[in-house]
Amino acid sequence: MTTLNTTDPRTATTSATELTATSAVEVAEITARAADAFGFLRRQSRAWRAGLLRALADGLEEDRETLVDAALSETGLAAARLNGELSRSAFQFRLFAEAVDDGGYLEAIIDHAGETPLGAGPDVRRMLVPIGPVAVFGASNFPFAFSVVGGDTASAVAAGNPVVVKAHSSHLLTSQRSHESLTRAAAAFGAPDGLFGIVYGQQAGAALVADPRITAVGFTGSLSTGKILQSIIDERETPIPFYGELSSVNPLIVTPGAVSARTDAIGEGLFVSVTGSAGQLCTKPGIAFVPTGEQGDRLVADIVARAEAAAAQTLLNSRIHGAFDEIRTRLIAQGGARSLVAPAAGEEGFSLTPAVLEIDAADVTAEATEEAFGPLVLLVRYAERDEVRQALQAVPHSLTATIHSEPEETELRGAFTEAVEDLVGRIVYNGYPTGVRVSWSMNHGGPWPATNTQHTSVGVTAIRRFLRPLAWQDAPVEVLPAELRDGRVDVPRRVDGVLELASAD
Amino acid sequence: MTTLNTTDPRTATTSATELTATSAVEVAEITARAADAFGFLRRQSRAWRAGLLRALADGLEEDRETLVDAALSETGLAAARLNGELSRSAFQFRLFAEAVDDGGYLEAIIDHAGETPLGAGPDVRRMLVPIGPVAVFGASNFPFAFSVVGGDTASAVAAGNPVVVKAHSSHLLTSQRSHESLTRAAAAFGAPDGLFGIVYGQQAGAALVADPRITAVGFTGSLSTGKILQSIIDERETPIPFYGELSSVNPLIVTPGAVSARTDAIGEGLFVSVTGSAGQLCTKPGIAFVPTGEQGDRLVADIVARAEAAAAQTLLNSRIHGAFDEIRTRLIAQGGARSLVAPAAGEEGFSLTPAVLEIDAADVTAEATEEAFGPLVLLVRYAERDEVRQALQAVPHSLTATIHSEPEETELRGAFTEAVEDLVGRIVYNGYPTGVRVSWSMNHGGPWPATNTQHTSVGVTAIRRFLRPLAWQDAPVEVLPAELRDGRVDVPRRVDGVLELASAD
Repeated sequence: MTTLNTTDPRTATTSATELTATSAVEVAEITARAADAFGFLRRQSRAWRAGLLRALADGLEEDRETLVDAALSETGLAAARLNGELSRSAFQFRLFAEAVDDGGYLEAIIDHAGETPLGAGPDVRRMLVPIGPVAVFGASNFPFAFSVVGGDTASAVAAGNPVVVKAHSSHLLTSQRSHESLTRAAAAFGAPDGLFGIVYGQQAGAALVADPRITAVGFTGSLSTGKILQSIIDERETPIPFYGELSSVNPLIVTPGAVSARTDAIGEGLFVSVTGSAGQLCTKPGIAFVPTGEQGDRLVADIVARAEAAAAQTLLNSRIHGAFDEIRTRLIAQGGARSLVAPAAGEEGFSLTPAVLEIDAADVTAEATEEAFGPLVLLVRYAERDEVRQALQAVPHSLTATIHSEPEETELRGAFTEAVEDLVGRIVYNGYPTGVRVSWSMNHGGPWPATNTQHTSVGVTAIRRFLRPLAWQDAPVEVLPAELRDGRVDVPRRVDGVLELASAD
Repeated sequence: MTTLNTTDPRTATTSATELTATSAVEVAEITARAADAFGFLRRQSRAWRAGLLRALADGLEEDRETLVDAALSETGLAAARLNGELSRSAFQFRLFAEAVDDGGYLEAIIDHAGETPLGAGPDVRRMLVPIGPVAVFGASNFPFAFSVVGGDTASAVAAGNPVVVKAHSSHLLTSQRSHESLTRAAAAFGAPDGLFGIVYGQQAGAALVADPRITAVGFTGSLSTGKILQSIIDERETPIPFYGELSSVNPLIVTPGAVSARTDAIGEGLFVSVTGSAGQLCTKPGIAFVPTGEQGDRLVADIVARAEAAAAQTLLNSRIHGAFDEIRTRLIAQGGARSLVAPAAGEEGFSLTPAVLEIDAADVTAEATEEAFGPLVLLVRYAERDEVRQALQAVPHSLTATIHSEPEETELRGAFTEAVEDLVGRIVYNGYPTGVRVSWSMNHGGPWPATNTQHTSVGVTAIRRFLRPLAWQDAPVEVLPAELRDGRVDVPRRVDGVLELASAD
């Protein structure tokens, strides 16, 4: 048995945990329990599941202190950020409870038997049903909101599926305590033992993805690890969906109007967005297009001054800390970027100060636009809008794009919107892409390599990833789910082609 | 240039066509035109696209004679079947036009800016947008409804995407004429040249799937070809969704009550379903569970008598014709099935009479449940319901399962429903799975290897395969799609968590 260590990134000190790497045999036992739990879950009502989700949220908040304590010592993130993230995770479970109560996510459809242009049609009723046990990979940068108690878990359980999490090696204790919080609350609610599983260690993660009982994988992390997991899936006898949120540089464009009207505000806003959580957010604006000329120069000088004055920030782990300057050096050596502010190491732990690079739009290539995870921004100077359009072709597809403009720049804003709409999953106007709102409409996904395009991992519609359609034809009423029976019903449905709201109370 | 041949399966005579295999350079030109067309399509309204779909439907019906003529000589399918299939294809385009007019498929969601439990939230609006050029592979067994003018094409275009079809080698002329019908109608409607493309030849198909401009692949065909296409996708720099409808044996269960009450009716219905279109339907019930005992014996005898009296039927091509008896022989030699009726070759062409096999439920293995594409049914004799449940574990996941029971067999029907619901995408009661209704609720998909689980390829919701979400945050009204602006709107939307119907006229 391999004993696993945990490291405090604030001091770079490593200590042994009582956790051991999960063996292949244990992984199979855990997924077998998950499969059993799935059988139980399938028979529960939506009301039961909404209640479960609320109980999980309550449990998280009850365990706030012990969870945040563990995360403080394992991630180096600030207490305010971690408390906010825990609140967000609890909110996420409650929002999914609302969605389960609402039932619109079931996409219930009824076509009664009847004559059609192609002859007599049978009675057909369809809705979405849960897909089965889901594997979730915790992310290094969100010990709560994208890990054991995060959005993938919440949406998979909301859909009616058991979840087995691969704990991220950067926050093993946080993961363990999070898992205990979930299992305690779930047990008190009467959920079966196998609803939540957790595995530790890289090999256990690989075994989990290969396990035939697993029906989908949710992952937030690096493109390279994502590709490894996808290749494991490619080897499976039964292919399963891989929902990877992998890489994003999040271009931000400042128009000539905006740079003149709001130099200081944009300087401050952009710098805060680049350096929040030490720049370790998937929506960090890593590339900012700034006009050439005097006003643009002022904005650049503002950001440079902020970076030079900034204190060192702690990064999540030694890998990210070590990669940061490697990537920065590549952006200069191979990408042709100029260093405006070089990072300085902090006094202790995995810490450093922010970095600022600059490049001319005409020189932007794939080598200059690699994602640098951490507090770094590449300022791209442009004179003509076509230079932006051209440079964007070299920028990897991203979760977001942001456009800062003035109200009267309608035509230019439209042109930039067109230039980014096929490249990203969310377009932000006069704001910043960090601070993702957890809501019904949020889209946190985008064309590859941001994600694999067609789904969000944040917000209510993330639930669709863990569902599949099932149809019943000429079914006797007693085999139909309650939501597909004729008469009053508590979900919206499309009946004979016409959308109907849930029956009034 | 390789000149391509076409074969009449009724006579097994091959003749040269004027078609040549599409070169890699030509494939790239075709996808480049599709990418251009996508830019145009993105700017058109839903009303425009619904009009286009209706024009395509009208065009198909105008060209009915020449299309059906070609298909008659290339597929050996009956004129009534082919005319019905053409009507179905036209109906499909019109049904998607209705769906586009309705706009519910956009899944429009608006969250206005406001206070949330996590602080101030920005205004976020989200809907689905088209994904880009789609590759569609024609199927051998549906020269219209699953080929150039089929459901994949209709749903991809309805979503707003250009389509490039790989013509099936079994019906090249039908494909060419179908493509001409589409392009003629599209041009008359004012659609750009690149909206529809077509490529010929296996290598061109592979090049199409590998082409970086292609954003999704729709395929209906064999599991082996599906796996090849998936492996090409696995090699792409940018992974894309593969929607394969691959293999299905469609178990059908007859309860003791049903076999007693409706022996003759089930004998006739099952035989018609097994042999319709010479058994070459993806929903053919290839495996039927029949009780042991006298009533079950009568049902078996009925089916045997029908098969012995049946005339030879023409199969689609030499490959299917050749494989049929190979697979049948394997089912006997390796699967342990008993031959009740052996097929006899017809007088001419790729023809043969139906085959009937029998096996005891306890002997059912994966080797006994391979899909035999053609007029063959395996009758599985069972004494106890647990034998059915057990045997189903060896049956590959399928598009459908069917349960024949009597009204009073509530408990048994429930048990069989539970036994199949995780294995299939549609459950049919007291009917037959062939004759798929094209409607809002239809699900034509199922767990692997039926499909890759989460989508249908028939019915309105097939459109979701070719869409992706896009969100706009704090967007000025002029950059928003009409469907996401405040005020009266012609689509249903979820606004601040509450589903609202389209505004009344």
